Amino acid sequence: MSQFIPKNPSFENKVKESFYRQEVMKTIGAKPILIEPGHVELEFKYDNKLTQQHGFIHAGIVSTVLDSACGYAAFSLMPENMAVLTIEFKVNLFSPAKGEVFIAVGKVKKAGKTIIVSDGELYAINEGKRKLVATITCTLMSIPNREGLEG
Amino acid sequence: MSQFIPKNPSFENKVKESFYRQEVMKTIGAKPILIEPGHVELEFKYDNKLTQQHGFIHAGIVSTVLDSACGYAAFSLMPENMAVLTIEFKVNLFSPAKGEVFIAVGKVKKAGKTIIVSDGELYAINEGKRKLVATITCTLMSIPNREGLEG
Amino acid sequence: MSQFIPKNPSFENKVKESFYRQEVMKTIGAKPILIEPGHVELEFKYDNKLTQQHGFIHAGIVSTVLDSACGYAAFSLMPENMAVLTIEFKVNLFSPAKGEVFIAVGKVKKAGKTIIVSDGELYAINEGKRKLVATITCTLMSIPNREGLEG
Amino acid sequence: MSQFIPKNPSFENKVKESFYRQEVMKTIGAKPILIEPGHVELEFKYDNKLTQQHGFIHAGIVSTVLDSACGYAAFSLMPENMAVLTIEFKVNLFSPAKGEVFIAVGKVKKAGKTIIVSDGELYAINEGKRKLVATITCTLMSIPNREGLEG
Repeated sequence: MSQFIPKNPSFENKVKESFYRQEVMKTIGAKPILIEPGHVELEFKYDNKLTQQHGFIHAGIVSTVLDSACGYAAFSLMPENMAVLTIEFKVNLFSPAKGEVFIAVGKVKKAGKTIIVSDGELYAINEGKRKLVATITCTLMSIPNREGLEG
Repeated sequence: MSQFIPKNPSFENKVKESFYRQEVMKTIGAKPILIEPGHVELEFKYDNKLTQQHGFIHAGIVSTVLDSACGYAAFSLMPENMAVLTIEFKVNLFSPAKGEVFIAVGKVKKAGKTIIVSDGELYAINEGKRKLVATITCTLMSIPNREGLEG
Repeated sequence: MSQFIPKNPSFENKVKESFYRQEVMKTIGAKPILIEPGHVELEFKYDNKLTQQHGFIHAGIVSTVLDSACGYAAFSLMPENMAVLTIEFKVNLFSPAKGEVFIAVGKVKKAGKTIIVSDGELYAINEGKRKLVATITCTLMSIPNREGLEG
Repeated sequence: MSQFIPKNPSFENKVKESFYRQEVMKTIGAKPILIEPGHVELEFKYDNKLTQQHGFIHAGIVSTVLDSACGYAAFSLMPENMAVLTIEFKVNLFSPAKGEVFIAVGKVKKAGKTIIVSDGELYAINEGKRKLVATITCTLMSIPNREGLEG
C-alpha cells in the first residue's frame, strides 16, 4: 500500500507513455510490472548482449534499469506539467548479476518540492530463488515541462 | 604522462582482451581509444537504441561506459593473476547526453593494495565542441583470479 | 528481531568498548541506545557548538554519527580478531537537522566476507515528533586486527 | 587562476561572514586559508577531541570540513540574494586522517543555474609531507534567500 497520493490521477498512463519512449528499454528488453504512486517495478530477462567479461549482466545495465525504476517512481507523483531529471545516483553492487530474470524496484524515499530521492533494489531470479544484486540511491529534480522535455 | 608503473608489462593487451569479451560494449558500440597505466578512454557514437524518453543517451548507458573506463583504468595496474570487481559507483549528471560522439575518460585516483578508486568524466562531442556531461567516482576491489573470473 | 547471527558472542561489549574510545563521540555527546547484531542506534542532543550558519546541526556532524552507527552495525557482526574500516559513504540530506534530540540508526544491508554495506537514517525529535533528516549508505571493509588498529 | 567570475564582487566577505557563523568550525578549529571564486580551502589542526577509536580524525569530521569547503566554493559564485543548501555528498576515504595539520580543498566542478557540484580533497600534513586522505563530491542547490536562511 503506497503512502503517497499522486497529483496526477492518470499517473499510470503517464509513466507507461514515457517509459515506452525510452528506446534503451527496448534494447534491454525491460518492461514495467508494477506502477503505483511512488513505487515502480521493472523486469528484464538475461540477454547475452548485455553482459560484461564474465557473462554476467554489466553493472551499468543494472544501473540503467534501477535509474529508470527510481525515476518513474518519482515521476508517478508529479503533477501533469512537470518533468523529472536525474541529478545523480549511487549504486552498490553486492553480487554478480547472474540469473534468468531481473527485477528492479524503485521507491520514493522523500518527495520534496523540487528534490525527490528514490531508493531501489535489483533482484536476480534464478531457479525460483531471489537474490539481492544491487542497491541504488537516486536524487531527482522536478522541473516544469518545456518543449522537447515532456516527461 | 602516467604517474603509475604497471605491474603487468602486457597490460594493454590484457585490457583489450577483457574489454572485447564485454558483449554490452558491442551493443553500445564502444571501443578503447587510449590505454595507459591507470588511464583508459572509451568512445562510442550516438545510437537511437540507447536513448531515454527525450532522445538523449540514457544516464545508465553513460554510467555503463564510465564504469568500464574506470574499471579498466584500475585493471591496467594489476598484476597478471588479479581480477577487478566494482564495489560501488556514484554518477553526477551535468547535462543531457546529447551529441554525435561520446568519450569516457577513466583515471585511477588512488591505487591501494585491495581497494582502487577511479574517477571519470564523460564528454559529448557536438559540431566539434566538447561538453562535460557526467562525472563518476568508482570504488573497485582487486581479487585473486579464479576460474570463471579472469580479468 | 535481527536477521544476523553474531560471530562474536560478546559483540555488545566489543562495540561499546570501541565506541567509548571515539573521542569525537564525547565531543558530540552521542551514546549508543541500541546494540543488536547488525543494528546500532546512537543518540545525541542538540548542542550549539555543532551547528552550521543557520543554527542547525551541521550536515557533517549528522554524517559523523551516521557513519559511526553504520560502522558499529557492521562491527557487531565481526569475529573477535577483525577490525572495520569505512571505505566510502554517501549521505542525502532531506531536511535541516533541527530538533532537540537526534537518533542515528545504522543497519547492515549486506554482510559480505570482506565488504559490508550498511544503510542508515537520522531522525530529529522535536516536540515529540520524529522527522527523517538524512540517509546514508556506507561501504565498509573488514580487515584482520593489527597493532594500533583494534576495532 | 579561477575560471569563474563571481556574481557578487564582495564574495570573499560574504563567505567569511557565513563561515564564522558555523559554530562547528570553532569546535573543529577550522579556518579559511584561501577564498577564490569557486575555490575555497580550509585548514584545521589535529585535536584529540575529534578522533575515532584509533586516534585518527574521525571520517565524519573529515567530511564536515570537506562539505564546508565545497559549500563555500559554491557560495562564492552566488549572487547577493541566494543561499546554498547541500543536497547530498559522497566521501571516499583513502588513508587514516593522521597528521599535524589538515587542509580541505573545495572546487566547483559545474555551476548550473540551480544545481552546483563541487569536488574536494582533504590532505594531511605530517613532518612537511602532504598525503591525500579523502575525496568528496558534493551536490548543492542554490535557493533564494529567506528569513533565517541567509547564506
